[in-house]
Amino acid sequence: MQLAMIGLGRMGANMVLRLMRAGHRCVVYDRDPAAVAALVAEGAVGARDMADLCAKLEAPRNVWIMVPAAVVDRVIDDLSPHLAAGDTIIDGGNSNYRDDIAHAKRLAPKGIHFVDCGTSGGVWGLERGYCLMIGGEDEAVERLDPVFAALSPGPGEIERTAGRNGDFSRSEQGYLHCGPNGAGHFVKMVHNGIEYALMAAYAEGFNILKHAGVGLNEHAVDAETAPLANPEHYQYRIDVGEVAEVWRRGSVVASWLLDLTATALRADPQLEGFGGRVSDSGEGRWTCLAAIETGTPAPLLTTALFERFSSRGEADFANQILSAMRYQFGGHHEKPEKS
Amino acid sequence: MQLAMIGLGRMGANMVLRLMRAGHRCVVYDRDPAAVAALVAEGAVGARDMADLCAKLEAPRNVWIMVPAAVVDRVIDDLSPHLAAGDTIIDGGNSNYRDDIAHAKRLAPKGIHFVDCGTSGGVWGLERGYCLMIGGEDEAVERLDPVFAALSPGPGEIERTAGRNGDFSRSEQGYLHCGPNGAGHFVKMVHNGIEYALMAAYAEGFNILKHAGVGLNEHAVDAETAPLANPEHYQYRIDVGEVAEVWRRGSVVASWLLDLTATALRADPQLEGFGGRVSDSGEGRWTCLAAIETGTPAPLLTTALFERFSSRGEADFANQILSAMRYQFGGHHEKPEKS
Amino acid sequence: MQLAMIGLGRMGANMVLRLMRAGHRCVVYDRDPAAVAALVAEGAVGARDMADLCAKLEAPRNVWIMVPAAVVDRVIDDLSPHLAAGDTIIDGGNSNYRDDIAHAKRLAPKGIHFVDCGTSGGVWGLERGYCLMIGGEDEAVERLDPVFAALSPGPGEIERTAGRNGDFSRSEQGYLHCGPNGAGHFVKMVHNGIEYALMAAYAEGFNILKHAGVGLNEHAVDAETAPLANPEHYQYRIDVGEVAEVWRRGSVVASWLLDLTATALRADPQLEGFGGRVSDSGEGRWTCLAAIETGTPAPLLTTALFERFSSRGEADFANQILSAMRYQFGGHHEKPEKS
Amino acid sequence: MQLAMIGLGRMGANMVLRLMRAGHRCVVYDRDPAAVAALVAEGAVGARDMADLCAKLEAPRNVWIMVPAAVVDRVIDDLSPHLAAGDTIIDGGNSNYRDDIAHAKRLAPKGIHFVDCGTSGGVWGLERGYCLMIGGEDEAVERLDPVFAALSPGPGEIERTAGRNGDFSRSEQGYLHCGPNGAGHFVKMVHNGIEYALMAAYAEGFNILKHAGVGLNEHAVDAETAPLANPEHYQYRIDVGEVAEVWRRGSVVASWLLDLTATALRADPQLEGFGGRVSDSGEGRWTCLAAIETGTPAPLLTTALFERFSSRGEADFANQILSAMRYQFGGHHEKPEKS
Repeated sequence: MQLAMIGLGRMGANMVLRLMRAGHRCVVYDRDPAAVAALVAEGAVGARDMADLCAKLEAPRNVWIMVPAAVVDRVIDDLSPHLAAGDTIIDGGNSNYRDDIAHAKRLAPKGIHFVDCGTSGGVWGLERGYCLMIGGEDEAVERLDPVFAALSPGPGEIERTAGRNGDFSRSEQGYLHCGPNGAGHFVKMVHNGIEYALMAAYAEGFNILKHAGVGLNEHAVDAETAPLANPEHYQYRIDVGEVAEVWRRGSVVASWLLDLTATALRADPQLEGFGGRVSDSGEGRWTCLAAIETGTPAPLLTTALFERFSSRGEADFANQILSAMRYQFGGHHEKPEKS
Repeated sequence: MQLAMIGLGRMGANMVLRLMRAGHRCVVYDRDPAAVAALVAEGAVGARDMADLCAKLEAPRNVWIMVPAAVVDRVIDDLSPHLAAGDTIIDGGNSNYRDDIAHAKRLAPKGIHFVDCGTSGGVWGLERGYCLMIGGEDEAVERLDPVFAALSPGPGEIERTAGRNGDFSRSEQGYLHCGPNGAGHFVKMVHNGIEYALMAAYAEGFNILKHAGVGLNEHAVDAETAPLANPEHYQYRIDVGEVAEVWRRGSVVASWLLDLTATALRADPQLEGFGGRVSDSGEGRWTCLAAIETGTPAPLLTTALFERFSSRGEADFANQILSAMRYQFGGHHEKPEKS
Repeated sequence: MQLAMIGLGRMGANMVLRLMRAGHRCVVYDRDPAAVAALVAEGAVGARDMADLCAKLEAPRNVWIMVPAAVVDRVIDDLSPHLAAGDTIIDGGNSNYRDDIAHAKRLAPKGIHFVDCGTSGGVWGLERGYCLMIGGEDEAVERLDPVFAALSPGPGEIERTAGRNGDFSRSEQGYLHCGPNGAGHFVKMVHNGIEYALMAAYAEGFNILKHAGVGLNEHAVDAETAPLANPEHYQYRIDVGEVAEVWRRGSVVASWLLDLTATALRADPQLEGFGGRVSDSGEGRWTCLAAIETGTPAPLLTTALFERFSSRGEADFANQILSAMRYQFGGHHEKPEKS
Repeated sequence: MQLAMIGLGRMGANMVLRLMRAGHRCVVYDRDPAAVAALVAEGAVGARDMADLCAKLEAPRNVWIMVPAAVVDRVIDDLSPHLAAGDTIIDGGNSNYRDDIAHAKRLAPKGIHFVDCGTSGGVWGLERGYCLMIGGEDEAVERLDPVFAALSPGPGEIERTAGRNGDFSRSEQGYLHCGPNGAGHFVKMVHNGIEYALMAAYAEGFNILKHAGVGLNEHAVDAETAPLANPEHYQYRIDVGEVAEVWRRGSVVASWLLDLTATALRADPQLEGFGGRVSDSGEGRWTCLAAIETGTPAPLLTTALFERFSSRGEADFANQILSAMRYQFGGHHEKPEKS
């Protein structure tokens, strides 16, 4: 079928390519004319602006938006005057699901459908396909089924879940209609919240392996330093890259994130290219907010998020408070950094 | 080559089968004669006791122990009088790596080698192979290479890590000599510590999805109850089993543990067969102890362990203290359980 | 000076009494006429409704609202038509500071001032005084100084902070103008967030003391149960009530919350009167939301909140997921509850 | 009564002074003759060595050891040859309670009693008295009662716990016989574990107050940065020192640790004298180990300990892993530090 794509960054452009490979026709627009030209060279129809884009689409129109969350509002404002009842806007970016509810409400009086689609797959999606988590009214989602099917990975070689048989469900093909407006981004949000904690679990574990040789070092003996309880038990120099590799096969902790860790450690065994200031984008935060608002315990998800904040120095004042308290009650001076 | 196996439970018996399929010869012993007989029927040589087992092995002997951690000490005591210098004992169970160090020290004067081998793979290992994490002296570990190669999964269909080429390393075949005595079980211990946190990350996330519809319920309005901030944002009835299924394809959180979760939710969508009292065996605890002793921050790993303790009621007194404090300073009475 | 109080619950009524003891004149209103009558008997002027209340006040009027957060909006709507430019509304309840910002904005066009006042002290405030955290414009806050001074504890017997001398600052008297609208409730919110974690810290510690005798019990020996590592180290029967008492004197952990814990344990040493379902009101949640939105690591504050959620059964589904996963990969069945 | 003190550091010397003020006679020893001389000038009897010290004591002898935990073993070895059946050694330092059990066992055949005494009070103990947590046999502890009574703060001005009346219990005087050998240090260990979490709770809370103005700053708008959700809600410049001061009066979070925080913030409002590398001595770690071994959930206590590790850079490798993973799956580059 025919689909317009607005926003031709790494994600949007790759999705257009994957759609065209599956036989769909794409009209494309980006603020950057070079991004448009590159896809026109691959067979897409280029658009000069929103009006042009909408004019080039047959009704009912399907317009997929793939832009930063902060810009979605403005794009919808620019786009909607050129759309008509029965058309559909799909937000495939990392928007807050609450904004989806607002967008759908705003577009409803004009008869324009709104579909939110959480998209996982990163830079690998062109080849592997994208895992799609979709929210919106049944009618609109149904009509777009061929698009979702083309973008998603399909059942692939993955072993089928016991108890499933017959035709592959959509979930088995890698896309799922999760519920009404916002449900897609809600599920994607939780997905990313889990992702943060999975990443932190591996990171903490590999860090313990990295510390497995602390008994080989000399240790200060004073009242300010907790003694290393059993130095004879921490005499190992573990090759963490090799450990990441071996866990990829047959182990309970095998995962795609572990595969990536193995790749990273192979390329740079000491990870010297990384300072350890870990960014976070919105979904991890929103997941924790949802946990708190719904009264759901999620200490790992939240602590994983906070570890990222701390990695960027945001715990500094708290730590200064602790040192100041210790100085007050015990006369403890800070120990200088190891040199 | 020839190997003896002591302990023919689910793990030990399957490992014997996998070894024999690869052409190795196995002498087997278990307290339960039926377990011995079952493997004799498959081509193993049965032994009546430790003496008989050792007599049936050519020197240098290789004896693999696959018994509960609490019993390893006793088995080594019973076994070692029948062994000679140059023989090797392999502990493939879930022992504490500190015990390995002690065992190796105890056997060294007799010239008996000790090898520790952390083994991951669970009930799936017979077909998939076992991920092996090995500790011990080079000589002993080298000599057993054919055994490890047979037990491990091999490179399989898994995509090769970028930057690796030429012959497959042992880690790529699914086994790794991690370091001297205890290093194997140390790495396995951390593996399980990570496993607990990975599991908890998924569990917390799915629990948030389960709570996504709390805005549909009525809520008490009183000073004892935090108001649900935005009920209109929590109106979703998410099918968590379908979400587990869709995340298996193309998503960043894909993993073997997620595959298993999808299976579980397919078989019992409300998980009514599970009360939620979550056991823990030793490795998760030992990982956290190692984190503390080595001064390595591991809040997710530790919190995941504590969530299991809480699931078994071990936080009850702490919670009673909290309610008692609230009563003291604010006259707050506990709210009765929802009925 | 003259002040009206709306809402004569435990907090509001006690505050009126404390104000009148200090010589202030109070006009009082509550939906419950008995609550009004009780204070009229103590010397307050009763009001029949909002109009009557405002008519009985000299301009500029001061109206203090002490009602549940959920009702503040409606009270302001009912009240403000009877107020004039130059009058002031004080919200002394547990409102979200964001609502203060909205209320101030809504009242500004009419020239009505809005002051938010976080109030700590609970049922003890009448005698001990209330710790007041105040937000609002300088002018309005300044004018109310005599009221704040009367409600707060004053400097009392508490040892003066080193470096402070001369006249007592307002903070040393127990009240503080924290900043513009919302600043008072913001500081009170964080106060309560800290309170949750302080409480949980004691509760976790006392729970460890309660578990100090686990080595005296018999323990299951099976693969499902982590062995108690060193039973000989856990042979203590600690009297936790006596420990709470001794820590009140000379120890670093002495605090008012500990005093209350000692009282609770004295009255009911096993805390059998408490089931351990711990409520949370809004401020703890809002503190954690603020931590997340501002990028401030606060894992203890958040985990303390989540422990309360878990105490009310909100982790159950997560725990079922964990048991289900364990069953899938290892064939582990749940162990029944200890009987 | 008569008591010897070995170890005349800040704690030991002050305790001797407090004992002599109460009329007890002290024989003192330290490796540093100047420390001995200083107390001799105050009325103590100096000793040249262990033999001399024991010779100067009447039987049954009482010898209090106040030295770093790492040295206790050696001191007991040097001391015990000069002691006789019926004498008592008291370890008043920060020893691991497990060592107490070993020490008592070692001394029992000679008829020498061993008493462990956890001592809280820091540099303030000389004037305020010390909170004492005592372990050992009844007989030995009873005989030392006058010493414990003199060191402890006594009932003081502190309000009596409801339900307590008649003579003051020992706990109300600030000392407690907690149980057999090790029980004193066990209770002191948990005390310090709680202390860490109390400190962290305040530190996290004050850090949120410090971040209350982030909405006043400009913010990057890119896909790497979680947007500040509601900048209009974070416009406060809170004076955290004044907040610490006001909370000291009438508030639920009042405590001695808060008093110290107020002092610290008064002396150095930005805490520029502290880098925020927070040390930990043994007890915090041992508390968490005990929580894990006994199966007691203690996520706050453990996370507080881990925050200290992180403050010293021990999370760096974990954070590098996270950045490396993000680069692998999303091509995310680290954002440079704010300058």
